[in-house]
Amino acid sequence: MTADTPLVHPLGPLSAAEIDAASDLVRKAWPAETLFQFKVVTLQEPAKAALVPYLEAEKEGKPLPDIPRRVFLAYYLRNTHKFHEALVNLSTGVLERNVRIAEDKHANGDGEEIVAIEKVLLADPGVRAAIEKLRLPAGSMVVADPWIYGSDGVRNGLFRDDVRAMQCFLYMRDPANPTEPDSCHYAFPLPLSPVVDCATLEVVRIDVMPTGLDAAVKTLDELTPWQPAPPSEYIPECQTDGLRTDLKPLRVVQPEGASFAVSAYSEMGRSVAWQKWAFKVGFNQREGMVLYDVHYDGRPLFYRLSLSDMAIPYADPRHPFHKKQAFDLGDVGAGIMANNLQLGCDCLGAIYYMDGVVSNAEGRAQAMPNVICVHEQDAGIAWKHTNYRTDRAVVVRQRELVLQTILTVSNYEYILAWVFNLSGDITYDVRATGIVSSQPVDRELEKTPHPFGTVVHPGVLAGHHQHFFSLRLDPMIAGHGNTVVYQDAVALPRDPVLNPHGVGYTVETTPLKTSCSLDIDTAATGRVIHITNPAVRHPVNGAPAAYKVHLPPMQPILADRDSFHRKRAEFADHPVYVTRYAEGELYAGGTWTNQSRGGDGVRTWAARSDSLEEGDPVVWLQFGLNHVPRAEDFPVMPCENLRVTLRPANMFVRNPALDVPPSTQAVNCSVSLNGVVDKAAASGTNGANGTNGTNGSSCCA
Amino acid sequence: MTADTPLVHPLGPLSAAEIDAASDLVRKAWPAETLFQFKVVTLQEPAKAALVPYLEAEKEGKPLPDIPRRVFLAYYLRNTHKFHEALVNLSTGVLERNVRIAEDKHANGDGEEIVAIEKVLLADPGVRAAIEKLRLPAGSMVVADPWIYGSDGVRNGLFRDDVRAMQCFLYMRDPANPTEPDSCHYAFPLPLSPVVDCATLEVVRIDVMPTGLDAAVKTLDELTPWQPAPPSEYIPECQTDGLRTDLKPLRVVQPEGASFAVSAYSEMGRSVAWQKWAFKVGFNQREGMVLYDVHYDGRPLFYRLSLSDMAIPYADPRHPFHKKQAFDLGDVGAGIMANNLQLGCDCLGAIYYMDGVVSNAEGRAQAMPNVICVHEQDAGIAWKHTNYRTDRAVVVRQRELVLQTILTVSNYEYILAWVFNLSGDITYDVRATGIVSSQPVDRELEKTPHPFGTVVHPGVLAGHHQHFFSLRLDPMIAGHGNTVVYQDAVALPRDPVLNPHGVGYTVETTPLKTSCSLDIDTAATGRVIHITNPAVRHPVNGAPAAYKVHLPPMQPILADRDSFHRKRAEFADHPVYVTRYAEGELYAGGTWTNQSRGGDGVRTWAARSDSLEEGDPVVWLQFGLNHVPRAEDFPVMPCENLRVTLRPANMFVRNPALDVPPSTQAVNCSVSLNGVVDKAAASGTNGANGTNGTNGSSCCA
Repeated sequence: MTADTPLVHPLGPLSAAEIDAASDLVRKAWPAETLFQFKVVTLQEPAKAALVPYLEAEKEGKPLPDIPRRVFLAYYLRNTHKFHEALVNLSTGVLERNVRIAEDKHANGDGEEIVAIEKVLLADPGVRAAIEKLRLPAGSMVVADPWIYGSDGVRNGLFRDDVRAMQCFLYMRDPANPTEPDSCHYAFPLPLSPVVDCATLEVVRIDVMPTGLDAAVKTLDELTPWQPAPPSEYIPECQTDGLRTDLKPLRVVQPEGASFAVSAYSEMGRSVAWQKWAFKVGFNQREGMVLYDVHYDGRPLFYRLSLSDMAIPYADPRHPFHKKQAFDLGDVGAGIMANNLQLGCDCLGAIYYMDGVVSNAEGRAQAMPNVICVHEQDAGIAWKHTNYRTDRAVVVRQRELVLQTILTVSNYEYILAWVFNLSGDITYDVRATGIVSSQPVDRELEKTPHPFGTVVHPGVLAGHHQHFFSLRLDPMIAGHGNTVVYQDAVALPRDPVLNPHGVGYTVETTPLKTSCSLDIDTAATGRVIHITNPAVRHPVNGAPAAYKVHLPPMQPILADRDSFHRKRAEFADHPVYVTRYAEGELYAGGTWTNQSRGGDGVRTWAARSDSLEEGDPVVWLQFGLNHVPRAEDFPVMPCENLRVTLRPANMFVRNPALDVPPSTQAVNCSVSLNGVVDKAAASGTNGANGTNGTNGSSCCA
Repeated sequence: MTADTPLVHPLGPLSAAEIDAASDLVRKAWPAETLFQFKVVTLQEPAKAALVPYLEAEKEGKPLPDIPRRVFLAYYLRNTHKFHEALVNLSTGVLERNVRIAEDKHANGDGEEIVAIEKVLLADPGVRAAIEKLRLPAGSMVVADPWIYGSDGVRNGLFRDDVRAMQCFLYMRDPANPTEPDSCHYAFPLPLSPVVDCATLEVVRIDVMPTGLDAAVKTLDELTPWQPAPPSEYIPECQTDGLRTDLKPLRVVQPEGASFAVSAYSEMGRSVAWQKWAFKVGFNQREGMVLYDVHYDGRPLFYRLSLSDMAIPYADPRHPFHKKQAFDLGDVGAGIMANNLQLGCDCLGAIYYMDGVVSNAEGRAQAMPNVICVHEQDAGIAWKHTNYRTDRAVVVRQRELVLQTILTVSNYEYILAWVFNLSGDITYDVRATGIVSSQPVDRELEKTPHPFGTVVHPGVLAGHHQHFFSLRLDPMIAGHGNTVVYQDAVALPRDPVLNPHGVGYTVETTPLKTSCSLDIDTAATGRVIHITNPAVRHPVNGAPAAYKVHLPPMQPILADRDSFHRKRAEFADHPVYVTRYAEGELYAGGTWTNQSRGGDGVRTWAARSDSLEEGDPVVWLQFGLNHVPRAEDFPVMPCENLRVTLRPANMFVRNPALDVPPSTQAVNCSVSLNGVVDKAAASGTNGANGTNGTNGSSCCA
């Protein structure tokens, strides 16, 4: 998509030129020889008070207000812990803010430093000496996955935990195949964890992992030789039993093209229109894909939709695992870690790709092609009814529009998708896959049930951990001015007149008046959250237009109240938070999650007990899973799937998919396999397997 | 599929000839002029003690033991309440049992009597007189949906509730279009409910429905004229705003054929083999589709899988709604009500159809074509990992095999499917659709929030109701001899040595020793049920081979402890029941659910506290939803979807889908839409919509 004049829109993701221009403006404010490590160069979205009128004018084709284009940056003076935040106004070319921030705030990781840290530590004499003690096979290839250090409030002579550091987990490739760069090193975890100061790139400590059941902290002198173990590879060429040969191709074709249309609302931003849905898609370093200005059939629904953060605390309380908790957006970034999606591999059918652009550590634009893919898919039956008197069936098939992005965070992958359908539903679909974090375990303990994980392979313990996802909904259901309510189902007491048989129940709806958290005890109350617009009423039943939330159940964070895990993962203690909209409150775990201490995030904001009565709520939906690993999760785990669905409730007069043409064979061109996949059985041999045949007859011309 | 000699297998569904032969044997036991109303003619599955050795011999190719072929029948002497159970041995031609059963047991409904009852009551003078009072428009067409009567223990002079009866709900077609046979009559509910004695086919009472908010029971004299209201049609030709024209076709093609094979294990029974899965599919009048002898890669998993029943209690406590609770399997039958699935309408792609055969009221075989459809579908990514050092991504797509059946129970539809995938998972997928049960409400109350339902259309209240589904799993995970356990996640207390930072947690596994019910409080414990084989251990970690259960949360039945609703819906009070296997315990709500009183079903069986230590547990999984109708649910509701997933846990050495070939464009032949769906934007016009284009280029030859 090319344009002569670049389009500018307040919600358009930064272009490459804008990224470069913004970091240049920061550079200019410093002496020429200053070296920088840029951590964030991202769009500073305009204040809602300015943006809402802009979007309304845009929708109505009226003159557009001027909104200055601002960029938020964060950077270190390279090789120091001097961390700065800056705000650049690109419209005026002015550096509006440029401050050193508090010492206890630390930036996210980035790819360049991960690679540099691995290199440094593998060359470090102390680390090499420690590795020597393990007596690894000759020619072994050790690799290191740097991880954010985490928080535990511990200071010791060598190291203060408010110094930005990385704890690095060491692994080895298959010693019998050390030159295979994609050998699964997670099958060979080593009991060493060097800690690296991110400013000096020096190894300041080497932790030794517990590999038994006790909590004693070992020293380097106590390292014992590595116990031989077999590999566990995921690459197809290493599957020693061969690959399946009997999975026939399945293709999705759209012979008349796709039903959706894409246009550019800015140089990097794309608008999507599909089956009465219309919305803008943005992309940035931290959140990855963000949706704005979501409408259905011209009616406003959501102002902004995003994954706000994740937290993954681990169960093993022993040093150094006690501080192992990843915030994969705040600590790294869903945008910067987004996969380049490949045609025909990650998506199936007729696919549209969107690109992104982020900044590298030099503040230079870095293209990220194919970070979002868009496609339609069939999703079974949308609705059906057969009148038993006439046997006439009316059946309509469900179609979905999927916008998918995938992020890789060292070992783990997350497949994140927004899914729209013909019935007015919006679903957020999360799949966790990739490789579970592994730590070494003594071979002799393998058959002992381990309190903190599962032995998934000889010598490999996959630790238990919880996943928490926080979805941020900034609603404008049927327009701005929304009230969040919860609806509980309540049994009626027996009453000789009204409820003599004890069967009655009703629903009670309670509006939220101040910011708060909510719990959902389905067994007790069947509680459902609704986001309503009290000023817009259903023409028949007078109920407020609303969207209701289907949220999978969650066990809140198990780390205790005083732990850093819980203090930091402000969203992980309740499935729902509702706050009053405030500028800058986008990330449920706070802005700077790396080695954070809590005090910034959704719990802190909700505790203000702001009034919600002006009708500008932000809804934070938390969901997740307790991952008790199983052997089937290794070496790569089959996807664990979680879905949150937002469904209209009295928003529409009637079923919004009634006008979808019924499903017909003439359009769908299905094929009958009768007489094809069961050929061999036609002879009547008891128990014989049928052979796979070619396509049967088709009803299509 | 033809065969010269009919195949006979102990698990083969009855053939047409067998149905006829069985009912003939019953007839012969009575005087020649006896008239019968057959309610059930179904396979009496052999005792497990006989069947397990048979299946093992079959698997090993050894000589097969003889197992007599038995048929269970239930019938009335027509036009009486004399209800009988019979057992026929077709192998010997002997009627082994033929008894009149207790007066308080009542049979399921059937299609013939539903139609007859509607006819009778619409011709009844009392009913006609009552309808007259409503002053319906000239030429109006009144229809009646007979419903099972329900239970309330009430006896009055006219009618004892242990007489088998139907309560009938009356509706009218659109008075402006009364000759349209598919006019949605649920938009015009009438406040009359005639009660018909099923033996005499006489109207014994006419109930008047409350249409206000109070509980006063109205008499026929208090009927007032019908208040005019508009129609609400679902048939496409009545969609006055027209149908969507911009949904492009989407087709699923398998150019090399399907990956599954089907063979006949008996005349009516089909074996399916797909991607290491192998199982037998049966079909019967009550349960519809049943799966037997499920194996993965030759390893036994499940002996029998079935939907055991459903219960749908309604919230309105006022007469006559207080007894409104449907058991759609026990009261009617998922087999007898199964839709004839249509190529290209109900299923998409390359489809295999299975037929069924049931009995009619004369005991004659009645063919039911296309009651189960089988097809593959893509299900997104199965697993993926990208090594960030090399950028090599390995991605495998998930493929599913779906066996689907749909039942229509008057107004409601249920789409029920078993879904298998490449990762060893089995999912039971339920979609509720069709038309919510409607009752009349005074026009002037429409905008008043109603305690017991939602006004979905002028004059139409859709009552709140709960759906409960009970899935019966008879496991043989890694062989017979299973133990059910539950696994909770438990925070560790602070401890200066082990857990100084308060982050530790572990999992506690508790085996079930006696039959019982279980609750699942995810927020408190993150509880997960596992079905394990303690005698089969993972070769590395020694954990028992198991399958774990992902069950959506459920609010138990709200009707109180002493209510007939709760007494009857024995499964609806807990999400999990585990009983010891016993012959004849197939249906969680008991055998004869129609007008039942409780005392037969899973709660009763579990209360025996049988020891589970012999290792033959049956697991009953309950799940459901509280349906608070919304306007979008009318006139036909978009599917509400619930899924239960069974996933291997330490059953396999490693990820069972590692040997699936990676997803490649060469096989998948996806198509890029870049430059196609965004054409119009290429000119750079701000905000212009792109046009839908034809397929873009394809990488396939």
